[in-house]
Amino acid sequence: MQARLHEIIFEADTRAGRFFDLALIWSILISVVAVMLDSVREIRAAHGELLAAIEWFFTILFTIEYVLRLACIGRPLRYATSFFGVVDLMAILPTYLSILLPGSRFLLVIRILRVLRIFRVLKLAQFLAEANVMARALRASRRKILVFLCTVVALVVIFGSVMYLIEGEAHGFTSIPRSIYWAIVTMTTVGYGDLAPRTAIGQAVASLVMILGFTIIAVPTGIVATEMSRATDKPVSTQTCPQCASQGHEHGARYCKDCGAPL
Amino acid sequence: MQARLHEIIFEADTRAGRFFDLALIWSILISVVAVMLDSVREIRAAHGELLAAIEWFFTILFTIEYVLRLACIGRPLRYATSFFGVVDLMAILPTYLSILLPGSRFLLVIRILRVLRIFRVLKLAQFLAEANVMARALRASRRKILVFLCTVVALVVIFGSVMYLIEGEAHGFTSIPRSIYWAIVTMTTVGYGDLAPRTAIGQAVASLVMILGFTIIAVPTGIVATEMSRATDKPVSTQTCPQCASQGHEHGARYCKDCGAPL
Amino acid sequence: MQARLHEIIFEADTRAGRFFDLALIWSILISVVAVMLDSVREIRAAHGELLAAIEWFFTILFTIEYVLRLACIGRPLRYATSFFGVVDLMAILPTYLSILLPGSRFLLVIRILRVLRIFRVLKLAQFLAEANVMARALRASRRKILVFLCTVVALVVIFGSVMYLIEGEAHGFTSIPRSIYWAIVTMTTVGYGDLAPRTAIGQAVASLVMILGFTIIAVPTGIVATEMSRATDKPVSTQTCPQCASQGHEHGARYCKDCGAPL
Amino acid sequence: MQARLHEIIFEADTRAGRFFDLALIWSILISVVAVMLDSVREIRAAHGELLAAIEWFFTILFTIEYVLRLACIGRPLRYATSFFGVVDLMAILPTYLSILLPGSRFLLVIRILRVLRIFRVLKLAQFLAEANVMARALRASRRKILVFLCTVVALVVIFGSVMYLIEGEAHGFTSIPRSIYWAIVTMTTVGYGDLAPRTAIGQAVASLVMILGFTIIAVPTGIVATEMSRATDKPVSTQTCPQCASQGHEHGARYCKDCGAPL
Repeated sequence: MQARLHEIIFEADTRAGRFFDLALIWSILISVVAVMLDSVREIRAAHGELLAAIEWFFTILFTIEYVLRLACIGRPLRYATSFFGVVDLMAILPTYLSILLPGSRFLLVIRILRVLRIFRVLKLAQFLAEANVMARALRASRRKILVFLCTVVALVVIFGSVMYLIEGEAHGFTSIPRSIYWAIVTMTTVGYGDLAPRTAIGQAVASLVMILGFTIIAVPTGIVATEMSRATDKPVSTQTCPQCASQGHEHGARYCKDCGAPL
Repeated sequence: MQARLHEIIFEADTRAGRFFDLALIWSILISVVAVMLDSVREIRAAHGELLAAIEWFFTILFTIEYVLRLACIGRPLRYATSFFGVVDLMAILPTYLSILLPGSRFLLVIRILRVLRIFRVLKLAQFLAEANVMARALRASRRKILVFLCTVVALVVIFGSVMYLIEGEAHGFTSIPRSIYWAIVTMTTVGYGDLAPRTAIGQAVASLVMILGFTIIAVPTGIVATEMSRATDKPVSTQTCPQCASQGHEHGARYCKDCGAPL
Repeated sequence: MQARLHEIIFEADTRAGRFFDLALIWSILISVVAVMLDSVREIRAAHGELLAAIEWFFTILFTIEYVLRLACIGRPLRYATSFFGVVDLMAILPTYLSILLPGSRFLLVIRILRVLRIFRVLKLAQFLAEANVMARALRASRRKILVFLCTVVALVVIFGSVMYLIEGEAHGFTSIPRSIYWAIVTMTTVGYGDLAPRTAIGQAVASLVMILGFTIIAVPTGIVATEMSRATDKPVSTQTCPQCASQGHEHGARYCKDCGAPL
Repeated sequence: MQARLHEIIFEADTRAGRFFDLALIWSILISVVAVMLDSVREIRAAHGELLAAIEWFFTILFTIEYVLRLACIGRPLRYATSFFGVVDLMAILPTYLSILLPGSRFLLVIRILRVLRIFRVLKLAQFLAEANVMARALRASRRKILVFLCTVVALVVIFGSVMYLIEGEAHGFTSIPRSIYWAIVTMTTVGYGDLAPRTAIGQAVASLVMILGFTIIAVPTGIVATEMSRATDKPVSTQTCPQCASQGHEHGARYCKDCGAPL
């Protein structure tokens, strides 16, 4: 019975498992949209009770799912403290807390974190292998990207401070942190326009920052493209360990690589 | 007679066929520009009748072309329900409907969809092979791009909600959907500036979102660059099946890969 | 005498030739900056006569250079009608015309086209080979880029029209061309903010356009990166043909590839 | 004694050396944040004395470190005139100068340059090799990037001037330098919106500039990606020369590549 539940809830290679996963995706999407709409004043005023009903329906559904997950896994504590275990708990807790703290905007935002549960969908079909290639390419290039980010941070700190000196408080560059915010907005080519240089020298420095940002964006792209072309598409099994719920085992692996339990 | 018409209308390797294709391109471009100008109040007031005349001229031309296409193809129904068959029909239908529903802005927009017909031009010259390489590279990377888009969506939902909490309604972040819209505007480095953080914490979070957006743009680029360097330039014939109008047959192929009719 | 002049003016492998090139670069830069400053009202009012003197000094210098170029080349007419021949003429003509048409802003802008002469600097040092690699990579990918641009144009036309329908004239989307302008501003991630969606549906469509623009930027990058990694650094000689002034001959080539004259 | 100090201060392969480096990183970060906060009027008013105390604490710490660095190196003058030697001096000098020139905003900005000292952290762990690969890839592509920047400059000068002609002073394009500033803001896809075209022709030209900027960003990315995939990860030692403090020696190198002293 426990093995069968595990098959349905954690695996995706049986018909019941695939159906469960699809139902879960739709539940997550609908409940996230319901949370979003709940934050729109007009919709809340008009359909507040419907949204509350939907919210409670999915909370109870997710609670049953959470209890079943705990029930059918070998080491419940290990699952409960894993990343997805915490996300699963945070998907249900805020609704129960909202009885004690009604109308809290903070709980609304915690509830929306259940969007992270959508990454369970990656288990479906062949997405896991693809996600794995990308994750490996990013991991292989994490040091290069950190060096790149350090350079960007040093550049925005220096250029921001220079602009604070040039433009000054009269033109909105009231402090160095605010000027650094401007430098980030400019170097990343976002360009809100809420803060823009007005003196000729300031515009010249800003032009330099823009062209720099336009050019150095080539660096992370070059890093990731290189690593990605190196990473081969090593196929990954969709199995989930019945003991500790860890994923990403190799095709044909017979024992869990994290806890040694048979798969 | 039917074979000759097919040669002219669907193929591009005879002189008449190339001339027909060129005439078609110009007709499409002129009629699309006419639709655009028709939406400008001043031009419509001054030259409304001329634009209507141009519209009717091209509609009748495209109608004749549509009828001829149906006439010279072996399986007219298959063509009529194909992507280009529907686009061809939508290029002429709105003008006839405008007699019944005069001045509808909706029909104007449907009419502009005839810009899609320009992709018939790809048949001309060597563009088909090039478009094919790109299409194959994109198809090969579609799963990776979907994983990337899922991550982007999860990030903007979470960051949008966090900003809704931090900035609040006083600074324009009136609801979670609106805050997510801000997160998309910021992460994609568009940065309209209609909604910008004003608190210090909000600007710090926004800086994080910007640098994240500036860096993760490297991921799709790396994906596409890798797939594109793998995709070889397999030459594609410009033949169109006389029975079902399907394209993209291999060079020297003698039978249609979709319906088996001789090419 | 003519051969010696050709050596100095057109070549960069003698000391005199390198000196001439350096002097030319500085003359171009100073005269371009002078034209720019001439357009600033305050500077023109304060230093108008100095700027006019600088302008005439460089115009006479460039005229002498132009006459010498014509004198020391074998086929003056061919040079005069080449790209750089026309640019060289446009660098001097507007100043003489300004005696007849004083204060014309149009002539000021023509004069600034002399910035194009800076590409003669590429002949200096090893830049020619580098520029050649990039030019070849771009030429090899021109068809793919054209297909990409066609797709972008089709997308902005369709999305622009849809936004014209959704947002309408009340929110600034007064016509289809103006809405297409908005779509270009958004898809290229520029985002001025002079035109921004205000309805919920409009913001949803805009979000789609932004994420699309953020993702499809990967396509030209992938194309160029692939072609650039294929293009080998074939060294190019810095020789200029004494007869027709054509460049880009192979190292060790003894005859001009365009007119057959000995190099 | 001098060798032991050198080991701690300049090297990272002993426990004391690593601890020193970590302490240095935190000192730099805290002192930079203190400088930033010092520029915020409200924080300065409330906690001015605490910030001054922090500033003096770190200045004295950095002074001791600077003196020790000079003491334990073989050629103090060579270190003092090296890039990091100058940065180290600039990290302490402004605070002492601020006694003579109190409240100078200029000194505040000089002080923030100590953020550059963070690049000493690269010596820690394996970052040096990564940074080296990137630096070599950038150096290998510097000529191509220069040709690219020349093209961008020529384009923004020409398009800026054309927009000055089209839009004119009435729409904010008051001079050619200001119009070039607009062209840079647009081509780099920053798009502040402080200056935006208002005429139909101007918007058409702006659309061209945007699509151009959106497409040519592919060029530097292609250059860097190509060079980065060519650059192999040649491991670099974390040793620093005890005589001249130069870094980046090969693994197993026994003599300094810059001054010949034994490592």
